[in-house]
Amino acid sequence: MELLRTVGAMQAHAESARAEGQTLALVPTLGALHEGHLALVRRALDEADHVTVSVFVNPTQFGPGEDYDAYPRDLEDDRKTLSSLGVDAMFAPSVDEMYPYAANEALPGPLAWVTVEHLDEHLCGAYREGHFRGVTTVVTKLFHACKPDIGVFGKKDAQQYVILKRLVDSLLFDLEIVGVPTVRESDGLAMSSRNDYLDPEEREQATVLYEAVTAAEEAIQGGEQEGQAVVRAMQNALTAAPTAKVQYAEVVDAHTLQPVDQLAPGQEVLAAMAVFFGDTRLIDNAFVEVPRS
Amino acid sequence: MELLRTVGAMQAHAESARAEGQTLALVPTLGALHEGHLALVRRALDEADHVTVSVFVNPTQFGPGEDYDAYPRDLEDDRKTLSSLGVDAMFAPSVDEMYPYAANEALPGPLAWVTVEHLDEHLCGAYREGHFRGVTTVVTKLFHACKPDIGVFGKKDAQQYVILKRLVDSLLFDLEIVGVPTVRESDGLAMSSRNDYLDPEEREQATVLYEAVTAAEEAIQGGEQEGQAVVRAMQNALTAAPTAKVQYAEVVDAHTLQPVDQLAPGQEVLAAMAVFFGDTRLIDNAFVEVPRS
Repeated sequence: MELLRTVGAMQAHAESARAEGQTLALVPTLGALHEGHLALVRRALDEADHVTVSVFVNPTQFGPGEDYDAYPRDLEDDRKTLSSLGVDAMFAPSVDEMYPYAANEALPGPLAWVTVEHLDEHLCGAYREGHFRGVTTVVTKLFHACKPDIGVFGKKDAQQYVILKRLVDSLLFDLEIVGVPTVRESDGLAMSSRNDYLDPEEREQATVLYEAVTAAEEAIQGGEQEGQAVVRAMQNALTAAPTAKVQYAEVVDAHTLQPVDQLAPGQEVLAAMAVFFGDTRLIDNAFVEVPRS
Repeated sequence: MELLRTVGAMQAHAESARAEGQTLALVPTLGALHEGHLALVRRALDEADHVTVSVFVNPTQFGPGEDYDAYPRDLEDDRKTLSSLGVDAMFAPSVDEMYPYAANEALPGPLAWVTVEHLDEHLCGAYREGHFRGVTTVVTKLFHACKPDIGVFGKKDAQQYVILKRLVDSLLFDLEIVGVPTVRESDGLAMSSRNDYLDPEEREQATVLYEAVTAAEEAIQGGEQEGQAVVRAMQNALTAAPTAKVQYAEVVDAHTLQPVDQLAPGQEVLAAMAVFFGDTRLIDNAFVEVPRS
């Protein structure tokens, strides 16, 4: 496996693979790889001849009060993991590489930004100002650096997944976004690097997120047609965790990400939530198709 | 010459040229090609193995009161011109191709936008709200559709040229922006599709733009160090045209596009103006290096 630290080296590496007629997949990550990431990598290895995994803790997608500094980083561990899986290239650039002007004190800024309108108005976007602007901007840069035919993302970051699909279609990127289902611990908790922040009691109670997601799925598949009734089913499930503080629980259209009052037969909706355990913020969600009869 | 009308066909065409090891140049235009455009095309033919010229009147870079509907369009004439020059591909997409979601009435918007912060605060950007957002967004799409190694632009659109260079560097596009000097009529008027809107009297008076640009160059090269004195030299030259209405005349740093009070030795500045003759808005400008002694 090649370890590439600069944009120029990564672009040359990608061009050389493309010149050999290989198809390329990119799996963008923040590192601190867990089983959830490995599911993305395995999917990429299935779908393409050549797989690049990027490891970059992107400062512009963390808000002022968020955990940018504390976010776990272990490049050497990640390198060993990816190498053992048969990944072709690991792209681990510095912040200066990814934000060249911000790093240039003689000529700081201005920066280019990529945004997708409206899709960040609800769910996490309502609480994490600028987060999705940071994501769409850095993913655009990663696509330009790594030149993939497909980009592989986890559906656990559901709002991100919907926004990135729109980004690619709207900006005419010649690539496809592939979404991989959420990987869960045996008790249902969605895998996340942030699970490591939980103390034992919080870890035990954190299973209510999956229970709430399941409650929403069952309500919708059982014929519930009121968006607010589905939200109440999620909220009820979350009350089983006394230390949990719910930031949001919403049911939105899976394409517009706008709240749904009345679920329509055949409509794809997203039931999603964010919950705090102490300072640790966890998310979970499910895409559900409303039954047609 | 191939005429390509869809993004998919253009991408396949570009990939096939790249697979043969050719270097690709793109010349983005709004069509209605004149000698100024042809200078861009000739430069592209010099610089790359394969040249694509795009012809697309981009609605998002025209403001509400501007001339989107009236802007001259003659695709058949442009096709003949480009074919005779030895251009390889003409990319002439529909608005629906370039803005797929906006065109989909069942699922309109949201759109992705690309912006470069701060560089649109002065010059044309101060008077044409949203114009440069439209330019940076459509140029990003054209780069994704046409996959060039170089993009060739006229320095006559000076603010656009500076913004696009920043766009490419900041978003890590694997391509280079090449700027071509302004092409002028024999009396100095910068070539522009909008010159056709002028009546004979306006056409005659329009030469004051070049005189004002020359006055600014002479003032700076003659040792003038006050930004406002250079601006006054431009304004004085423009008073020779009684029908001209000056929208702006400014001297800005050529990289930050912020106004310059005191010119520094070795600094590159941009002296630029926009002037109305009736409803017709013309621009002209020069990049000037401040003398070092």
